[in-house]
Formats: sequence, structure tokens, C-alpha cells
Amino acid sequence: MAKDTKDSYLVGLIGSGIGPSLSPALHEREAARQGLRYLYRLIDIDTLGVPPEAVGDLVRSARDLGFDGLNITHPCKQLVIEHLDELAPQAEALGAVNTVVFEDGRAVGHNTDVTGFAASFARGLPDVPLERVVQLGAGGAGAAVAHAMLTLGAERVTVVDALGERAADLAGALNRHFGAGRAAAAAPDRLARVVGAADGIVHATPTGMAAHPGLPLAAELLHPRLWVAEVVYRPLETELLRTARAVGCAALDGGGMAVFQAADAFRLFTGREPDAARMLADIEGLAGEVESSVGKAA
Amino acid sequence: MAKDTKDSYLVGLIGSGIGPSLSPALHEREAARQGLRYLYRLIDIDTLGVPPEAVGDLVRSARDLGFDGLNITHPCKQLVIEHLDELAPQAEALGAVNTVVFEDGRAVGHNTDVTGFAASFARGLPDVPLERVVQLGAGGAGAAVAHAMLTLGAERVTVVDALGERAADLAGALNRHFGAGRAAAAAPDRLARVVGAADGIVHATPTGMAAHPGLPLAAELLHPRLWVAEVVYRPLETELLRTARAVGCAALDGGGMAVFQAADAFRLFTGREPDAARMLADIEGLAGEVESSVGKAA
Repeated sequence: MAKDTKDSYLVGLIGSGIGPSLSPALHEREAARQGLRYLYRLIDIDTLGVPPEAVGDLVRSARDLGFDGLNITHPCKQLVIEHLDELAPQAEALGAVNTVVFEDGRAVGHNTDVTGFAASFARGLPDVPLERVVQLGAGGAGAAVAHAMLTLGAERVTVVDALGERAADLAGALNRHFGAGRAAAAAPDRLARVVGAADGIVHATPTGMAAHPGLPLAAELLHPRLWVAEVVYRPLETELLRTARAVGCAALDGGGMAVFQAADAFRLFTGREPDAARMLADIEGLAGEVESSVGKAA
Repeated sequence: MAKDTKDSYLVGLIGSGIGPSLSPALHEREAARQGLRYLYRLIDIDTLGVPPEAVGDLVRSARDLGFDGLNITHPCKQLVIEHLDELAPQAEALGAVNTVVFEDGRAVGHNTDVTGFAASFARGLPDVPLERVVQLGAGGAGAAVAHAMLTLGAERVTVVDALGERAADLAGALNRHFGAGRAAAAAPDRLARVVGAADGIVHATPTGMAAHPGLPLAAELLHPRLWVAEVVYRPLETELLRTARAVGCAALDGGGMAVFQAADAFRLFTGREPDAARMLADIEGLAGEVESSVGKAA
């Protein structure tokens, strides 16, 4: 059956601790506006009591039981790869998959974190200078957004992480993929120097989330010629963004990445074009609901 | 989450050769009228290339991946039992499950073939005499409808099957469950005698389906004091029903059983009351579509 003649879709998210994920609401609201019957199920390995390595069995079962696709998140984005039949170029370059599409019984891996961040950045910070970019955080999200920045044309991305080896590994992988000299690693004690010379900062650590409040770098390092792009989206307005705006920086919240990665996955699952503007409006309400419920629980 | 506060349901059917099943349409149309997002997926062991014994793994996977329940059909209705946590009384008595409901991680087996046939019979042939009932066919459907007839108050059900041992086994099981003397087995060559003394006939063999045309007994055995209840529902109007109506018999087609077993499963899955009258109207159109498409293919 051709995808665009279907009106019902079954998808899900495999990962750990995903109960609070906004993906079900983002996908299902957009699908409802398009008149689709669309179910987005959470498949939490913690709830199931299975190890991350079970992702292969879960993906096979989902294919057998009629799922159209899956999102994959921490800690399964790398582990899932060996269980797939094919990888899209972005996923192969990154070595991480966040979206699996079942096509005629084959499982194809994609990465919409990369395309999602790129789309959000291009929309939210068009025409900013990209000669020197500092990226805070070299974990899974950091790898995805560094790929996105270099794909967008950043000349040089300097990766800073408390784990020096992780930063060096990511810089090495980026240079192999994008060309020598496009990436470098810097120790946290060199932050003042690299930020002083930078055009912008991409923030890809958990700092600023409700469970990890605070700033990922000293406030006095921010200067008005910087732009600041955030990956954290709960809350949408992190302490970093508030501080950066107060200094006069152009600032981009993490909601756009969350929306565009979901929109790109929706397009892959359905073959239909999502309305990202409507989804951006959704996430403002959804992220607010989460903040409120956190506030009540506290 | 309480069932009646949910608005989305994921269910499916496990069996062999189930591509033409009307269950997805019956369930999904009723759900749409109730404003539910409801997906009914076909999980065909032939398509998957797995043996009937795989039903246990498929049921576990469905629970893990967020299904609310499953229908089970041939050849898995008995095999599934050992993989369930609990059986409803009808399913336990029959030794066959056609509906599994996941409740708080537990898999509970039901049989809505029994309740479905009983509901259809009570609606379509109210007040007919039930002293002596002849049932043609002692397979899985036969076992379910014999249980239904004895539950409805039939005094004695005489089971006739080309496989004499199967008829004797079913009669023995019925007598153990409902009391000695409620059931008997008769060889096909005694059909004229038992039908001559009967109030009604229940037909539960495949004869009369598109792939098995014809009559399950000689037309001259039908007499106007008989009622005739059919299990076959594709086509709705079988040669048996046409012949019986011509003789003057009260006659009940198999569509009602198909609808009420689906309606009972829908109620178990959702906790919501289906509108069986609307579903009966649906099946007339659906069974007609199937006949047309069979006609075109031929």
C-alpha cells in the first residue's frame, strides 16, 4: 500500500525513562489535524525491566506487530544499529539512529536529531556568523548538533566537555567526516579564551534542565556579539537563555530542535508534510504544562 | 489510567491467513463513531513465517509494545492459553481463547465466540423451541456454538461431524461441563433421523463459504418446523440459508455472530459499549464488498 493512501499509523519510542516525553503529544496532535488515526506508544525499557541490548528484539517485534516506525532514544541510539537493514547517510555518519522506518519488512535507520537541529537553527538564527562555534557537551546530543552545525557551514567547531577524551573523540570523528581542521577539542579551563573569540555557542549538556539547574558556563563569559543556541527544551527558557538575552545575545531555545526532529520523523513515518509552525505552537503549551506539573510535584 | 478516560486503543488479530478478516473494519468503524483513535492490526503468522506456537512470543511482545488487547484465531486459540495469566470462565470451559485483554501487565483470556453466537441467536431467533438441536460440525467454531446453545438453554445438542471421534470428544466435553445427557454425537449416516426429530439446526462447518460451495446436508432433510442458524458469514446468504428459507424455516445468518463477537471484544478492550445495530449494518456492506471482490477476482 502506498504510504500516502494510508490513514492509520502506529509508531512508538524505545528508550529509558521516557515517561515524560513530549513526542506522543507532538506527533498525535499534528496527525489529528491531518485527519489521521495515529498512535504513538511509549516503550520504556525501565518499565519492561529489560536491558538496553533488548532494543533489537523490540524493533523486530514492532515490525512483526504492524508498527510503521519507531523513534529511538537514550541509551539505544547506537545499540539499535546492528539490528537494522539499512542506514540513511546522516545516521551512518553520526553512528546513531533516532528514527527507524519499516518499509516492506526492512528496517531503515535515520537521524532526525541532526536534521531537526539544522532546521531549527536555520529558521531561528538565519544569517548569523558561523566562523567560530563553541559547543558545550560532547555526548549523544552534542554529536548530533555538531554534525548539524558543520553541515550548515560552520567553519570550525570547538568542542568542550568535562570528559576530555569524549570531546577529543568527537572532534576526531568530525574531522574524519567533514575534513581536517573543521573541529577541535578544548579543555574547560580554556573556555574563556575560546568563547572570547567565538561567534556563537551551542549548548548540548543537561545543565539548565529542571533536574540540573544552573548555567553551563560563567555568566561573565557571555558577550553581546555571541549568538547562543540551546538544546535543552524543558524548560524552554533556560537560565542560559535568560542570561544570554540579558547580555544582548541572539538566542534560540531548544523547542525548535524538539519540534523539527519530531516533524522530520513524522514525515519519514507517513510520507506526509507536517506543519512545523503548528507543532512549534504546540510545544510552547506542552513544555509549559510540564513545568507546571513539576512545580506542583515539588 | 482508567479505561474509560482513554481515547486511544491499539489492538490486533493473531492467526493464519487472516488477510481478508472483517475485524479491522468492524472495530475501527465503531471506534470512529465513538470518537476514539483505534488501530486494529493484522498479525498473520503465515506472512511472518512463524509457526502457530509463536503465539506466546507475539502476545508477550504485543503487551510490551503497548497493545491494549488481541483477538486470536485459528490455529492459535488453544495454543495461546498456556501463555496467559488468567482465563474468564467461558474461555476456561471451552478451552479456547479468541480475545486477550492486557490489564496492568496481566494477560486475561476470554472467548467472545460463545457470547457472540449467544447474543446473535437470542436476538435473531427469540422464542424458538430448543428441546432438540442438531449441530453440524465439531471443530473450533462448533465447540463455541455448542457451548452457546447449551448456555442458552438447549435441552440436548446432537453433534454430527465427518470425523466421528471429534464429535464424540466434543459431546463428552459438553456433558462433563453442562451435565450428563445434554449432548450426544451422531454419525453422518444418522442425519435424516436426528434432523427429522429436531427443532433446529446449527451449522458450523465451512460448507457454503466461497471456497467451499454447496449444502452441508441433503436439501430434502429440511422441513418447515426447523429453524436454521448459520455460522458462515461470507457470503451472508449461504446456499443452506437460501434453501432453508425456501422450505419455510426460520433462518439466522452468520453475520450476527461475527458482529457480536467483535462487539464483545470491543467492550472488553475499551470498557465502552459498542452499538451492535450499527455494526450489523456495517457487516452487510462489508460482506457484500468481499463477495464483489471475490467475484471480480474469479
